[in-house]
Parts: sequence; C-alpha cells; structure tokens
Amino acid sequence: MKMASEDGDVVTPWDVKAASESGVDYAKLTERFGCSKIEPDLIERFEKATGKRAHHFIRRGIFFAHRDLDQLLTRYESGKPFYLYTGRGPSSTSLHVGHLIPFILTKWIQEVFNVPLVIQLTDDEKFLWKNISLTDVIKLARENAKDIIAVGFDPKKTFIFNNFTYMGQCPEFYRTVVSIQRMVTYNQARGIFGFTDNDCIGKIAFPAVQAAPSFATAFPHIFPDPDKAKDIGCLIPCAIDQDPYFRMTRDVAPRIGMLKPSLMLSSFFPALQGNVTKMSASDVNSAIFLTDTPKQIKTKINKYAFSGGGATVEEHRAKGGNCDVDVSYQYLRFFLEDDAKLEQIRKDYTSGDLLTGNLKKELIAVLTDLVTKHQQQRAQITDAMVDEFMRPRRLEM
Amino acid sequence: MKMASEDGDVVTPWDVKAASESGVDYAKLTERFGCSKIEPDLIERFEKATGKRAHHFIRRGIFFAHRDLDQLLTRYESGKPFYLYTGRGPSSTSLHVGHLIPFILTKWIQEVFNVPLVIQLTDDEKFLWKNISLTDVIKLARENAKDIIAVGFDPKKTFIFNNFTYMGQCPEFYRTVVSIQRMVTYNQARGIFGFTDNDCIGKIAFPAVQAAPSFATAFPHIFPDPDKAKDIGCLIPCAIDQDPYFRMTRDVAPRIGMLKPSLMLSSFFPALQGNVTKMSASDVNSAIFLTDTPKQIKTKINKYAFSGGGATVEEHRAKGGNCDVDVSYQYLRFFLEDDAKLEQIRKDYTSGDLLTGNLKKELIAVLTDLVTKHQQQRAQITDAMVDEFMRPRRLEM
Repeated sequence: MKMASEDGDVVTPWDVKAASESGVDYAKLTERFGCSKIEPDLIERFEKATGKRAHHFIRRGIFFAHRDLDQLLTRYESGKPFYLYTGRGPSSTSLHVGHLIPFILTKWIQEVFNVPLVIQLTDDEKFLWKNISLTDVIKLARENAKDIIAVGFDPKKTFIFNNFTYMGQCPEFYRTVVSIQRMVTYNQARGIFGFTDNDCIGKIAFPAVQAAPSFATAFPHIFPDPDKAKDIGCLIPCAIDQDPYFRMTRDVAPRIGMLKPSLMLSSFFPALQGNVTKMSASDVNSAIFLTDTPKQIKTKINKYAFSGGGATVEEHRAKGGNCDVDVSYQYLRFFLEDDAKLEQIRKDYTSGDLLTGNLKKELIAVLTDLVTKHQQQRAQITDAMVDEFMRPRRLEM
Repeated sequence: MKMASEDGDVVTPWDVKAASESGVDYAKLTERFGCSKIEPDLIERFEKATGKRAHHFIRRGIFFAHRDLDQLLTRYESGKPFYLYTGRGPSSTSLHVGHLIPFILTKWIQEVFNVPLVIQLTDDEKFLWKNISLTDVIKLARENAKDIIAVGFDPKKTFIFNNFTYMGQCPEFYRTVVSIQRMVTYNQARGIFGFTDNDCIGKIAFPAVQAAPSFATAFPHIFPDPDKAKDIGCLIPCAIDQDPYFRMTRDVAPRIGMLKPSLMLSSFFPALQGNVTKMSASDVNSAIFLTDTPKQIKTKINKYAFSGGGATVEEHRAKGGNCDVDVSYQYLRFFLEDDAKLEQIRKDYTSGDLLTGNLKKELIAVLTDLVTKHQQQRAQITDAMVDEFMRPRRLEM
C-alpha cells in the first residue's frame, strides 16, 4: 500500500492533499485502495431494500465508494442483523460543516434500516497525534458529542463513547483491541499507515482501537450474547481517508472469527479555498464552523469561497462558470437538497446566466439556515442528555 | 541496550540463557543493565529504617541489585508514602517454587513497611506471546491469583488484577498506559526489548501496560487524589529479567510528571538441571511445582537435581563438593531460612563430609514442607476471597 499515488494525491487518515486544482482523483483512489464504486444498480438495490429513495449524498456520488455494501444488503434482505459504526477525532471544540457529512448520512441510514449505531470519539488518537493534554482531549470529546447529538440521533438507538472513558468501562473493548493487535505486525501497520520507526508505540497500537468497534463483541451491553455477536454485520459510513483502518480491520476479521465490516466511503468536503485539501479545523478561514454567525458565514463565503466563474462579469456572461472547481456550487451539492433547484443553478452558472455573487447568495442562505438550526438544536443538548448517550446500555433493535 | 553481552548471556523478559555452567554473570549483567549492586551498607540502612533484620533473600544476595532503593529509603525516612508493585505472567496453571520468590520477598517488605501492594497478572502479555486463547488466559490469571494469595497477603492492603479485566474497570489505567505509549518510540522499544518488524503491534504496545502500575495514577481507587498520586513512590521487587520494562518506565516517568519507581532485582531460581537457565513451567522435569506430591518432589530431586559432588563417594570424600554449581545447595540458599544450618551444610559439603544423597535429603525435607504448606493454604482460598482481592477498592494505608 502506497501513501501517494503516481499522480501525487496524498490520502491518509492524517493528511489529505490533492495534486491538482480539480481535487483528489477519486477514480484512481478507488482503484488504488481496492474498494468499489457505488454504481447505479447498487443504489437501486439499496432503494429496493429500504423502500426509500436514496439520500442525495448517495445519489450525487458524495458517498461514491464502498466495500461489501452488496453483501450487507443480501444479509439484510435475509433478515440478519447489522449495526452502524462511525466516529470522529476530537481535535477542536468547534466542528465545521464538513464534519457533519458522515453523521448526516449515518442518521439517515439508521432511520431507513432502523438499526443501532455506535459512535467512537478517538480522544486517545488526538492525544497521541496532537499536542493536547489528556484532560483537554477528553473535554473536547464531550463537546463534540453535543454537536453530534444535535444532528438528531435517537438516544434509544445510539451509543456515543470516547475511548479514554469506554476502555475503562468495558473489559470486552480492550480484549477486542488486543485480539486485533495480535494479528497485525509492525511491518503491516507501517505499510498501511506509513508509520516510521520514530513514531511512538501508542500511534502504532492505535489502529486496533479504531478497528475494534467494527466487531459487535466490543459492545456486550448492546449485543450481550458473544456467540450471536459473531454473526452481526457492521456498516461504516466514513470519509475515504479512514479506509486504511478498515482495510486492516477486514484483513483481521476472518482470522479472529468475525465478519468483515462493510463500508460506505465519501469524498472530502473541500476547503473554502478549493478542492486541493479537505477543510481544516485549525485554519479558521478555511471552513464554515458550526459556531459561525450569519455575518461570519456571509463574509467568509463572499471573501474566501473559491470561484469557478469568469474574471469579470462580461467574461462570465460570455464563457460561463466552471461548477467542477467552484466551491460554492460544490457546497450546494452537499447541502441543497432540492435536486431540481440544484440542477437549475448548475445550468445557469455553467451558461453564465447566474453570476458568482448570486450563486454565493444561494449558498449563504443554505448554510445560514443549516448552521442556525444546528445552533438551536445544540443549545438544547443538556449534560444529562450527553450522559445518557454515553452510558453503556442496551439499545433498541 | 544489547540483548546479549559479549560473554553470551541472554537476559530478556522472555528468555534467559547463561553461557557458562556457573550461570548468569550477575556482576556483568548489573553493569550492562546500569543498575546497582545491593551493598552491605544499603542493607544496614534498610534494617535501620525498618527496625527489622533484612530478609535472607536480601542478606544472601538473592535480591542482589537495585535502582534508587536508597532514594526510596530517604523518602520513607522523611515520612513520604510509597506502595509496592510486582506481578506475574500467567502462562500455566501451576506455579513452580521459583515463582514464589518475588512474592515471598514482597510480602515481607509489605509487612515491614506496612504499605499497599498491587499485583499485576499480565494475561494480555501471555495472550500476545503464547498460543493461548483469551478465555483460557483469563482463567489462568485467576488460578495464579489463588497461588499468590496463598503466600499470605493481607486483603486489606493488597490489590490483585489481571489486565484483561482491570483495563475495563478503570479509565485511569488506560489513560496512564497511553500517556506512557506517547513517550516511547518504536525505535526505543526495539532497542530495549529486541522487537522485530514482524512482531505484532500488540507486543510493541505492551511494555506500557507493564509500566503503568509503577504510577499511582493508575489506581484511583487506592490513591483517589490525582495530585497527591504524583508524589507517591513505588518499589518493584522482581527478577532482573524484568528490568528492561522499568528502565523504560524510569526514562518516561519525569517526562509525564511522575516519580521514577525504585527496583529490587533478584537473580534467577535455577532449573533442576543447573544454572544455565531459569526454571521453566513448560518442562515438567525442570522444576518443583506447587502441585507436586511429596513423592514427586523426592523423585525429581534425587533424579534431576544437578550435583556439584564427586563422581563417586570416594572422590567426593577426597575432593569435596562444589556448592556454586550444586542445585540442591542453591535451592537451600533460597528456602532454608536457618543461617547457621545452611552454613554448616555448605562447609560439610565443600569438605566432602556431607554426601550428595544427604544434601538432597535436606532439600527434599525443606521443599516438601514448603509445598505441602502451600497446598494447605491454597485449598482454603475461596472464589469469594479471590473476588475480594481482585475488586478495585480502597486499601488500608
């Protein structure tokens, strides 16, 4: 497994850098990682199985690749249980809108399949990789949990946990972690993640901690029968930079008598400055944060959102805009649910009828609505609610 | 740090092999490891501090080396608290008499200083290194706990834990482990432990799990104030093959704001066949087990205990025996408490007055008594008693 493809895209769990302005070459990445494209017939099968129209993240190719999603559907169709697993590395207090993507899709999948969900907050990972104290990283995890809960998850069906706490609440979690660690050599971990001999042993051991929730045995409070737990499937919606963890997990699974988890993989939410990297929580002007005011949103988009339009109004009217590199249009693909309206915008911007200023105005309206609603939701999350989501307990199935 | 010295002794936590018949060269090992010999003046200081004559394991140089024992005594003399930490890797149901050595000394130290004690059962280590299932290794830990309790520890002052369970009972344990893992690179771990790139990441991560109990922060139920925990000393009595773990621990300690643990290090208890290796639980004829019958003890010693005596009675009478290589005499140094009697045996055997058969008879009597008493003690250990020792709780200080 190489860290960078010949064309120079770098995609690891800790670093994403595209070589060209048009962003990461996802077709090449899919091939390099060895996952599969989500083709129209798979979407159709998905819709047939759930009886629901696919989420626009799926229809628009934002979640564009998968591993064994077809097998998961086959299992589901024959009545076999599965659960959902996703997560977040809590490196900052404030999430940006890109962070919501996996959670929005996961919530939708949870609803259409009516299945339990576990959400891992990798405070241990951030402690190992970033210069954050143990106390602070655990606090960050709890703050991030509030933003995740605000997406609208059902507490009867959702367990949120931070590793630094859950590891000490459930012996089976550590047992699952060590069972995985026993199956992965340093050579293999270095090949998958690009570790060097100067990396600390905590980093080298960590991938097994992110792998463990792929196995129902790590959650005896949800799946109390250890034998039945071996026959419970797992579907992981996440951004494609997390795929290395689950390639490793899927390699280990049969060797410890467990099912391989299935994956749905998304492209990256671009930075305001363009497609070459993913949004970064550490650069305040690279992203729209969930704590931004309407005024900040407006200013950031008008000032920083990379435009695919003409240099002048005249040029734009004459040659039209390029939606493929225009960040405002890209953001609308994520957050404007109305297909017809999005298509109209695409046509008008491409032809030059719609000016960049007006395209940005559309996006500002959509994001202001999204962020404002999120803030209202989050304001209602009490400590007691967080405690309840993070309490190891039975979930409704 | 080299794995083997120039003279060929191999001493790691997983392998001990002496190059010469007279056993491991402990003077060279002390120098190579960078620890200090326990000199007569330190024993004197120890006796002054405790008001008790030193244990014969100390007086006879069985615990022959240390790290910062003098500093621990200074702290003790000024009224600062410390606790004891020792452990065992549970790789077999039955312990042999050699396994008792660190526990016998630890119990004695606990009594003379009146301090709390934690005992780690590294079931995770054995799961990673040996071909034992998770279920079996956890059972072995519990069986071994019974043998340890039978040594006579005070349940009010002693906490016994297996990693596969305690990790899931106490978030602070995992937090301490990861804090250590953050400070040790793969390069360093390889240098200390001789790992190769084909070792699994579980092995590479494990040393931090054995290091963690050196810090009081890993036991909030015993030391509830995290700030005070940083000023609590730790003394670790163990065999010298465990020293690499604690060299690493002592290197990390100041960098995570903790005190370096002090160590008391013992030589190895030789196999019946002689000094070249330590007793092995996997070779039934290399050791006297705590489950052996008086008849088995008699047979094993008469048949296998390497003799330093003459080839014939006549030769023995003429030239005398060699106590330095005679296993029966060596065992008596460990288990015959009576100094005068031991000295008489040494003189008589060296001169040739005492024949090998009679020396072995003395040893058979001593070991039969030791093993029989142990079996009686162990038979009284109930599951409820094990549960109590292994329950995270306050200890008397």
